[in-house]
Amino acid sequence: MTRYEQLAAQIRQQIEDNIWQVGDRLPSLRESVKQSGLSLMTVVQAYQLLESQGWVAARPQSGYYVANRNNTFAAAKGGKGLHLNENVEINASIFGVLQACKDPDIIPFGSAFPDPALLDEPKLAKSLASVARRLSKFNTTANLPPGNEQLRRNIAQRYATQGIHVAPDEIVITAGAMESLVLSLQAVTQPGDWVVIESPAFYGSLQAIERLKLKAIAIKTDPLFGIDLDALEDIADKYPIKACWLMTHYQNPLGGTMPQANKKRLVEILNKHRISLIEDDVYGELYFGNKQPIPAKSLDTQGNFFHCSSFSKCLAPGYRVGWVAAGHHASKIQHLQMMSTVSASVPTQLAIAEYLSQGGYDTHLRKLRQTMEQRQHLMLNAIAKYLPSSVKVNTPKGGYFLWLELEPPFNAIRLYQLALKKGIGIAPGSMFSTSDQFNHAFRLNASFAWNDRLEQSMKVLGDLCHTLIEDK
Amino acid sequence: MTRYEQLAAQIRQQIEDNIWQVGDRLPSLRESVKQSGLSLMTVVQAYQLLESQGWVAARPQSGYYVANRNNTFAAAKGGKGLHLNENVEINASIFGVLQACKDPDIIPFGSAFPDPALLDEPKLAKSLASVARRLSKFNTTANLPPGNEQLRRNIAQRYATQGIHVAPDEIVITAGAMESLVLSLQAVTQPGDWVVIESPAFYGSLQAIERLKLKAIAIKTDPLFGIDLDALEDIADKYPIKACWLMTHYQNPLGGTMPQANKKRLVEILNKHRISLIEDDVYGELYFGNKQPIPAKSLDTQGNFFHCSSFSKCLAPGYRVGWVAAGHHASKIQHLQMMSTVSASVPTQLAIAEYLSQGGYDTHLRKLRQTMEQRQHLMLNAIAKYLPSSVKVNTPKGGYFLWLELEPPFNAIRLYQLALKKGIGIAPGSMFSTSDQFNHAFRLNASFAWNDRLEQSMKVLGDLCHTLIEDK
Repeated sequence: MTRYEQLAAQIRQQIEDNIWQVGDRLPSLRESVKQSGLSLMTVVQAYQLLESQGWVAARPQSGYYVANRNNTFAAAKGGKGLHLNENVEINASIFGVLQACKDPDIIPFGSAFPDPALLDEPKLAKSLASVARRLSKFNTTANLPPGNEQLRRNIAQRYATQGIHVAPDEIVITAGAMESLVLSLQAVTQPGDWVVIESPAFYGSLQAIERLKLKAIAIKTDPLFGIDLDALEDIADKYPIKACWLMTHYQNPLGGTMPQANKKRLVEILNKHRISLIEDDVYGELYFGNKQPIPAKSLDTQGNFFHCSSFSKCLAPGYRVGWVAAGHHASKIQHLQMMSTVSASVPTQLAIAEYLSQGGYDTHLRKLRQTMEQRQHLMLNAIAKYLPSSVKVNTPKGGYFLWLELEPPFNAIRLYQLALKKGIGIAPGSMFSTSDQFNHAFRLNASFAWNDRLEQSMKVLGDLCHTLIEDK
Repeated sequence: MTRYEQLAAQIRQQIEDNIWQVGDRLPSLRESVKQSGLSLMTVVQAYQLLESQGWVAARPQSGYYVANRNNTFAAAKGGKGLHLNENVEINASIFGVLQACKDPDIIPFGSAFPDPALLDEPKLAKSLASVARRLSKFNTTANLPPGNEQLRRNIAQRYATQGIHVAPDEIVITAGAMESLVLSLQAVTQPGDWVVIESPAFYGSLQAIERLKLKAIAIKTDPLFGIDLDALEDIADKYPIKACWLMTHYQNPLGGTMPQANKKRLVEILNKHRISLIEDDVYGELYFGNKQPIPAKSLDTQGNFFHCSSFSKCLAPGYRVGWVAAGHHASKIQHLQMMSTVSASVPTQLAIAEYLSQGGYDTHLRKLRQTMEQRQHLMLNAIAKYLPSSVKVNTPKGGYFLWLELEPPFNAIRLYQLALKKGIGIAPGSMFSTSDQFNHAFRLNASFAWNDRLEQSMKVLGDLCHTLIEDK
């Protein structure tokens, strides 16, 4: 360790031991030089290191203060704030969970993908084969960003049938929603900027924020109503937030959906503070009932919102075709895409365009939604039958995830490890946060066709939960 | 402007006026506080701002020094160093050039893609159609990173026939070489780290470096021998370089190839300083003559080198399938890919695997290389015929780019603008550098089938060059 690293470690220890508390002004650089006997340069570097790690924050003309790191924001309103950093181990563990999903012998309750048998891949493959026969005529460069024109028109038409005006020129085709989301985040932030995410949140957002060196405030999200808007308003007043990344419908992992009135208020808050909305809506088509919910993007009057989605949850995850309706950021997104992947795969773009133009997608979606709703019921029944009665589980009105909470200090990471040994995958709650507040929870994928093997696996999972509760 | 921005602007002006020269130690923070009457915090922020802009560099235990920004490194040896920053306008202009390539009415001398008629797309499309018929059986998750196993084995076999040992497990399939290169760079750098690139260089590397907030030193590269190794050695001694991104074969835009002896010395320098090599080898298959050159990756004894390539230059740019042989970084690359695009498109991966397994790729490549060599001759003839006799042009031993230099202050950006008005695209030299030292040069794509229209376009280009030279 160099001298400045030693000094930084020492101050960090003092903060952890509550010698300095959040909001406290640390000794000035001069004072610290005097007290430590180190050079000014060394002290400056130590403070900079602590700042880059999120432990302290600099205030112009004033000095360094202990930053809000893990403490509760607006606790009465249910908000929760944290800085993200050094969650490399979380990434590694997420990777482990996702790798386990690759094994066909593992029961895929931990998978993020829907049952492939539910998708319309056979029909889509016909479109692909048909496109392949004509493919030599297509010129690659014609499908450079923003992507295939027919496909962008198909997507714009689907928005139009929902009553949302999105011009094809505003749409950029990407290699899936993950690329859409990351490019959107890049388009409106610089390293060190503040963004708001949900708590718990899709792990991809945690990873992207880490990779882009952003600072994040995670606001508690409700299984019924979505992100806590009082907390958001409070934080938007206090922090220079650049973007707010959230899921309005069937949120991953909780399953919650934001009511229309909340969306209106969300948009008001964001517009007032000139915050870009990055709306991850990959499950939006998977609504149960008669009416598709309308994205918050529909209320965008300033072209400052991103609506990101893909065909991965309804049609073909492996095709890697998604999009972003990016408002006036569309050209910036294309610039960024040129240095990310250049463009989405051309044959798969064309295959999906052909598939959509043939009609029948809505019929497929209707069947898909019905089946998913039925399978959700079956899994809820199995949960009631086998899991401890103390389990809390919500009933999302769409999508295919169920979020289960047992009473803390239930250890869902341990459950994940034990279940995996018995050939069952689950997604532990810790994947969805950089804090440890969801360690007692886990997410199940309810999209698979029910059979004895799944029933038996739910029984095993229930037994493991009982054992873990008794052991503690 | 805040007070610290004012101070920073003042110091920047002093540097521009040569009051402080490169390598000079700036007044210490204490001295600056005393002299300016500002608070220590304000001075620290001013110095930090200058550092982030590349004007000054901090040295531990020592102070702030004026950084090498635009000055010449090891000028006698031909090296050239610069900091990159704020090259947003360069990005926008690159984007303009690339967009012009999309227009089928524009003569594609500025294109980065080979003539699509030269590629084996019709046969590959048959593989795609055949794969499409079997596609419903494939499970998406089985092709999550590191990518399709058969394809990784195909690629490992191609390395093996070159006498290079690369295990399939070391290979990660990506959405094209651009993704491979950017993920490789991310795997070994943090924002603020130093990297080495070539001058001139593939514009994608300039953009990626800007986006990842890295600091770059661009070392002059020779049209015959590649990057200047004396300059590299010198810089590796002085700077904590993390990675060196270069093209060993048919470098874009110059066309140079590094001799085997130079590769050995390159590897020695990099290993000595623990610098990762990011070897962009997308044109490696396009050698003229009998023997494929061996990548520097073959000399990697420590698993610290990345060899990046794709099927975009020989088979199908639109499929977006590339790879990286990443040594012991393979797992890190997969983690990063999960938050970039999740995986490469599955149908196109499978189609290429099927195509490669059928055999015939090498026969296709042999024909492709012969045709490209013939077309290079035809374009060189046209250059001799129509361009001013003062033009300098090299004869690359592979690939499909020609690099033309006219005597400074020839303005190739103006040539680009005038040519575009006449329906002819070219790639101006300014795309390949953040400095203005290649403003007199441009790159032509020689891969297209020669005809009267191309001949006529070369004549127009020649006339424009004559006019620009006379006007100046």
